[in-house]
Amino acid sequence: MGLDPGLTYTGWAIVSTHPIERFVCKAYGRIQTSVRKSISERLVHIHDVLLSVCETWMPHCAAIEQIFVNSNPVSSLKLGLARGVALMTPGRLQISVTEYSANTVKKSVTGNGHASKEQVLKMLKQIFHQTLSSYDSSDALAVALCHGFHLK
Amino acid sequence: MGLDPGLTYTGWAIVSTHPIERFVCKAYGRIQTSVRKSISERLVHIHDVLLSVCETWMPHCAAIEQIFVNSNPVSSLKLGLARGVALMTPGRLQISVTEYSANTVKKSVTGNGHASKEQVLKMLKQIFHQTLSSYDSSDALAVALCHGFHLK
Repeated sequence: MGLDPGLTYTGWAIVSTHPIERFVCKAYGRIQTSVRKSISERLVHIHDVLLSVCETWMPHCAAIEQIFVNSNPVSSLKLGLARGVALMTPGRLQISVTEYSANTVKKSVTGNGHASKEQVLKMLKQIFHQTLSSYDSSDALAVALCHGFHLK
Repeated sequence: MGLDPGLTYTGWAIVSTHPIERFVCKAYGRIQTSVRKSISERLVHIHDVLLSVCETWMPHCAAIEQIFVNSNPVSSLKLGLARGVALMTPGRLQISVTEYSANTVKKSVTGNGHASKEQVLKMLKQIFHQTLSSYDSSDALAVALCHGFHLK
């Protein structure tokens, strides 16, 4: 399971190994929370959806991109809130969460640690033969794939 | 319920209104997590204990101190992780969480928005006739009391 948490948008993706294709994307999605709700309610929504995804797909393990530490402490704090919930939720089901740096994820997917978001997306489409609708899901899919490569 | 979240120590306190004494401290504690465990496991521990406290005491509402935004984004991020779990957990039981600035908390408890930690602790001991063992619990108790004053 790949995770790309954020207070407004949290991407998730389920990737499994496949005997012919190396990896298959089983499901992916994006959890959106309303800015009109309280932060507590928004975090509950992220938790509830992620828990339901975990219970539905029962992934063996999860992966998350190491955070880009923003120079703005307020942004870092906001990102931290959603990230805390994203790290905690799989843990409740004994699903371990591994962190990868953004460069490691890009290198695993494209071969280039400094690839652009567009290059990552293009490669993901080639690997999974799938139309990806949002960058958020693509980040989750990329980190899941990166973890898959590292486990192999 | 007052909350003072942190990845290593999370303080909590349950305060209720009382016909003679204005406020009574029903329970308080500090959740400690081991640095030897993964961040995910540490957040699960904070969540599990807070959920159990919420289920045991069923507080009507919760309060948390607005974060002091550290100039260090890495510290802000770490604080954010535990804070996300502390904001989310009462929300799962429909317990709303109100935020108060540090100055508002200090002013409510001591009458002085710039009171020291020692002054807050001294006043809390006077109000609750109780021996408080740690500053972490005292912060949680102070924010719970602040919320109590604001609700009255």
